[in-house]
Amino acid sequence: MPSRQVAILEAAARLIARRGVRGLRMEELAAEAGVSAGLLYYHFTDRATLLQRTLEFISERAGAYTECRIPDDSSSRSRLEHKLLLEVQDDAVVIENSAAWGELRASALFEPELREILRHSTTEWNDEVAELIDAIREEEGLAAVGGSADAAARLTALVEGLSQRWLSQSIDVADAQRLLHAAIVLELGSGATAADGMPRPS
Amino acid sequence: MPSRQVAILEAAARLIARRGVRGLRMEELAAEAGVSAGLLYYHFTDRATLLQRTLEFISERAGAYTECRIPDDSSSRSRLEHKLLLEVQDDAVVIENSAAWGELRASALFEPELREILRHSTTEWNDEVAELIDAIREEEGLAAVGGSADAAARLTALVEGLSQRWLSQSIDVADAQRLLHAAIVLELGSGATAADGMPRPS
Repeated sequence: MPSRQVAILEAAARLIARRGVRGLRMEELAAEAGVSAGLLYYHFTDRATLLQRTLEFISERAGAYTECRIPDDSSSRSRLEHKLLLEVQDDAVVIENSAAWGELRASALFEPELREILRHSTTEWNDEVAELIDAIREEEGLAAVGGSADAAARLTALVEGLSQRWLSQSIDVADAQRLLHAAIVLELGSGATAADGMPRPS
Repeated sequence: MPSRQVAILEAAARLIARRGVRGLRMEELAAEAGVSAGLLYYHFTDRATLLQRTLEFISERAGAYTECRIPDDSSSRSRLEHKLLLEVQDDAVVIENSAAWGELRASALFEPELREILRHSTTEWNDEVAELIDAIREEEGLAAVGGSADAAARLTALVEGLSQRWLSQSIDVADAQRLLHAAIVLELGSGATAADGMPRPS
């Protein structure tokens, strides 16, 4: 994607995290991104398209910031732990991303055009987690107790629920990560040994 | 609480569910509730106080609409299933309540005065669920595998995560209830027999 478009999407995520979807005005976004309103409409057509593309951008960025922290030779279980636990961490980009995601999720009630892309991003996330669960079961020789799709849907919905509690300061990072880690253990057993590189909550 | 105050809080929940916290204006709320702006300020002082009282109202109403559907002679497990699964149901009040709760949760990022009351309501909800878990373990003679407080926090956070997915149409009621029911089984085993009056998802 051309860097100008990335700059616009970064600015959109920043503004949504800071003031919400309903406060987002195209002219203001152009100013924040340092481009003309004309260029904004040239690249994104209208507000609905811009919101959809921002949602995709946020979803991909979340994949990237968890993925890049995973050592190459990690076990599938370690990959899953990174992927889920790192959605809750005191990092400016993660906080901005989670805030924007939660805001877009809540706004889908009022902005119907967000629903399909939100469902699509959710399905993609669930599928990635389900694949990791299948890989863990194979690597660790676990019997499949339930469908990995259901386990994945529970784990990602729990990440969303805990993220919102964390962002609204009802729970701290350490507690949210501990609860998530225990949820993985409930779904998949405790695994073989302590993780490779990932600090496991006790 | 005097019926006039209840009418105002009902109107506030309705408006928040329909248009969000940031769209809520005191004058508009007075019109929706059919009272004067003077009376609104007399009862609720300012917008921050009104939002806090609305959050409490929503939290108590959620307790009531799950509680009233539970048969008096229910087992603790059946109470827990009702309490959690009935947070996701195709009922106008439940939808409005969940939408307003999700909106208030997401808005706490932008409205710091909501955070304390949100944390308080979350703790109360967690405590009620933890008490039920302790009662189930006693009634069913289960060994306590983990702290009931953690199990409660996971289950209620999952309810919040799934509610938001349901309201944004990423998942339907039946799937959300099925995932929740399975989460209870993961936390507490499958229990003795089929439930008393609660339609269990298969």
